Amino acid sequence: MLAMTAAELQGFLARDFGQVAQDFSVDAVDAAGLTLRLRVETRHLRPGGTVSGPSMFALADVAMYLAILSRIGPVALAVTTQCSIDFLRKPVAGRDMLGRAQILKLGRSLVVGDVLLYSEGVPDVVARASLTYSVPPVKA
Amino acid sequence: MLAMTAAELQGFLARDFGQVAQDFSVDAVDAAGLTLRLRVETRHLRPGGTVSGPSMFALADVAMYLAILSRIGPVALAVTTQCSIDFLRKPVAGRDMLGRAQILKLGRSLVVGDVLLYSEGVPDVVARASLTYSVPPVKA
Amino acid sequence: MLAMTAAELQGFLARDFGQVAQDFSVDAVDAAGLTLRLRVETRHLRPGGTVSGPSMFALADVAMYLAILSRIGPVALAVTTQCSIDFLRKPVAGRDMLGRAQILKLGRSLVVGDVLLYSEGVPDVVARASLTYSVPPVKA
Amino acid sequence: MLAMTAAELQGFLARDFGQVAQDFSVDAVDAAGLTLRLRVETRHLRPGGTVSGPSMFALADVAMYLAILSRIGPVALAVTTQCSIDFLRKPVAGRDMLGRAQILKLGRSLVVGDVLLYSEGVPDVVARASLTYSVPPVKA
Repeated sequence: MLAMTAAELQGFLARDFGQVAQDFSVDAVDAAGLTLRLRVETRHLRPGGTVSGPSMFALADVAMYLAILSRIGPVALAVTTQCSIDFLRKPVAGRDMLGRAQILKLGRSLVVGDVLLYSEGVPDVVARASLTYSVPPVKA
Repeated sequence: MLAMTAAELQGFLARDFGQVAQDFSVDAVDAAGLTLRLRVETRHLRPGGTVSGPSMFALADVAMYLAILSRIGPVALAVTTQCSIDFLRKPVAGRDMLGRAQILKLGRSLVVGDVLLYSEGVPDVVARASLTYSVPPVKA
Repeated sequence: MLAMTAAELQGFLARDFGQVAQDFSVDAVDAAGLTLRLRVETRHLRPGGTVSGPSMFALADVAMYLAILSRIGPVALAVTTQCSIDFLRKPVAGRDMLGRAQILKLGRSLVVGDVLLYSEGVPDVVARASLTYSVPPVKA
Repeated sequence: MLAMTAAELQGFLARDFGQVAQDFSVDAVDAAGLTLRLRVETRHLRPGGTVSGPSMFALADVAMYLAILSRIGPVALAVTTQCSIDFLRKPVAGRDMLGRAQILKLGRSLVVGDVLLYSEGVPDVVARASLTYSVPPVKA
């Protein structure tokens, strides 16, 4: 069912997105979705110690990207066309963040899904995002 | 836990939103969320027989509104401030639509939640929406 | 430059979308965009006399649809895939609403644009929307 | 009319957001809006040399934040609650990016605006974003 395992996705990230690969690790992937961890470091923080908006955007974006690859294989040409993100609560200081991505539609050229972002170990949703990716047409 | 039952929500709709009340029925409400039915009639359709975008927007909007009331009681002054909606698939002709709303944050002045829209009896999501409502500040 | 005039767009609406054609009139169309009027009637109102959210959504959606047709011609198969709408102010009672659509990207398969909604004769924006349409691939 | 000049905004950024201040410079600010420059460096790029999504998100977010401060003064507590962003075209390699922010509603507790993103010297819009900020209530 899955086209790529967590280890294969991590390897893809390291090879093709070396600059950000160290920020993220694939915690889990299955038919229902993918969980990506943002290893929070000082560079991800805003004044006051909370994770910055761009860092949370990146977590949502990469989580959806890898969820798509887990279904269709290593396609470097998938690009984000739209993202709507709601920031609901301050992330908890000193904790990694987790992004749980699920795909709602895997179309021939567009893929749409949701990502919920959490501070690790805390049940309240910190942010929610919907993303659309454009993917290259699959050859028959 | 719930401030209003399904019957009370239906009564509220009939009394305060008489114009649209006949379009909708509250199928279920509990701590996890609310399911609202759009009784599809000819006036909700576009050429080709599919449910129109504005009708789906209305289903998402009313579902979230009633989900909020189910938690905070009959507050007529809640207003939609934002909605992001993705249309994923054509609704199935000749079927009612169901909107399943869940609240992600019930804040003092803003409430944020998601609604998934389905054609009755079909598992694929037809549309997904995120909505923000502004609610009057709760008195202590 | 334009593929369809205001009169041709109005005729298209009357022929293919008879159910809603009477709600709307094309006030202006040029290379910069299109202005669509919602002829506000009782059926568009919510309690208190303001234009309903679904009616404003419909105004934004139809304005963008016609703006696209004004550029590519009468393509019945264009469908809305995404809409983000912010409701900023109460519309003024007893006035028509105007939607001013502009196209930001006219791609081979996706079209993205913005619509600003006003109460006629009032400068403040009542609502703003961004919409994405999927259009059938253009033949060479 | 303006509560802060371009130089004052730049100073605020340097003092309160030292980590990102070097990425951005305020090119212009007036009653109509604010133009912010992203000084594109290698750290903002994705494979292939285009500016990354999170970097564009940051440009939109900071541009809107500073546009708000230019109107209400140095309020550190403004926070982003929502962002919808459409990525329309690849940014042009080797160029700075400009974000042009305008405020559509400056409410007592919510501020809503739009940002258009460009590659410097190129007329086509690269991305568009709508953002909502929550601001602390203004004292009478």
